[in-house]
Amino acid sequence: MTSRPGGRSARVREAVLHAVHTELVERGYPGLTVEQVAERAGVHKTTVYRRWGTVDVLIADALDHTRETEWPVPDTGTVEGDLIAIATEVADTFADPARHPLPVAIVVAALQSPRAREAKRAFYAARHTEAAKVVTRAIDRGELPPHTDPVELIRLTCAPLYYRVFVTGEPVDRTTAERAARAALTAARAGLL
Amino acid sequence: MTSRPGGRSARVREAVLHAVHTELVERGYPGLTVEQVAERAGVHKTTVYRRWGTVDVLIADALDHTRETEWPVPDTGTVEGDLIAIATEVADTFADPARHPLPVAIVVAALQSPRAREAKRAFYAARHTEAAKVVTRAIDRGELPPHTDPVELIRLTCAPLYYRVFVTGEPVDRTTAERAARAALTAARAGLL
Repeated sequence: MTSRPGGRSARVREAVLHAVHTELVERGYPGLTVEQVAERAGVHKTTVYRRWGTVDVLIADALDHTRETEWPVPDTGTVEGDLIAIATEVADTFADPARHPLPVAIVVAALQSPRAREAKRAFYAARHTEAAKVVTRAIDRGELPPHTDPVELIRLTCAPLYYRVFVTGEPVDRTTAERAARAALTAARAGLL
Repeated sequence: MTSRPGGRSARVREAVLHAVHTELVERGYPGLTVEQVAERAGVHKTTVYRRWGTVDVLIADALDHTRETEWPVPDTGTVEGDLIAIATEVADTFADPARHPLPVAIVVAALQSPRAREAKRAFYAARHTEAAKVVTRAIDRGELPPHTDPVELIRLTCAPLYYRVFVTGEPVDRTTAERAARAALTAARAGLL
């Protein structure tokens, strides 16, 4: 078995992680099993057990794989436009039946598995760092106080959407997203972040 | 079996739900079983199976029971003080090893069980309604714009704390709590909520 990019090992990982996504969409986290992932990926189950071991490790690796992909940081010309774009992307993800299941499965898996917890922490740290570029650009343009914590403004923009999805079980939409972005921005402009 | 308050049925429920809390603190959600809850409560396991059926229903009932208890709404004299008190209470809950496990278990259970999901929704709706009293009082005192959505201000106060605990895996403390409360209040004062 080789681990060079594009080799058999990479193709197996691609097929298995794609199967994880599909199984999550169709069955959700409680229904996910190593056997079904292997069968859907067309890979022998002992290969999956040997390389990943458990469902939580499969989910953690799917998240690592997502983190490795490019995420286009918005650049609308204003920090308000950029933050609304980021919040809207979050809201759209949760409204999309094909994209919703992975973040949900990750939250559940992370509460049960240290490997998934670390993958989740690394994923959000990486996404926050990327997204924070819109804030540092805004500080450079003089749109925000120079001492603003860029990551904290990203957290406050996204938090109300995740709160509805994971905690209160309330719906999110683009109106919720815009309000969250504007509220966070107002706090930043007031010098609170 | 009687269902009058204080009767045998109520005592069994009290013992079983107390055992659910203790088991959650000691083992966490993945380790919770009906058998261990029954043993710790000193109740026969068939009684627990007949009345609750599954671990997720036990957790949902523990949440219903928590919802039925009084929650002291803060009344510090200013909306800023009240919101900081609410956010601090959330942060203190997550910092307390004895209180942290129930909300965590509820989030996991709710993603896997409709009964737990409904209990969670009802719990947060009830707590939001209670907490929103501090906002309506502030509107009456002229501290906030009259059209402010009281529940939305409570959501924005609490969301950054839950976001750290459940999504990014970052710590929460009283500084985080105060900043969340002040940021939400600033948005409300600006007429955004």
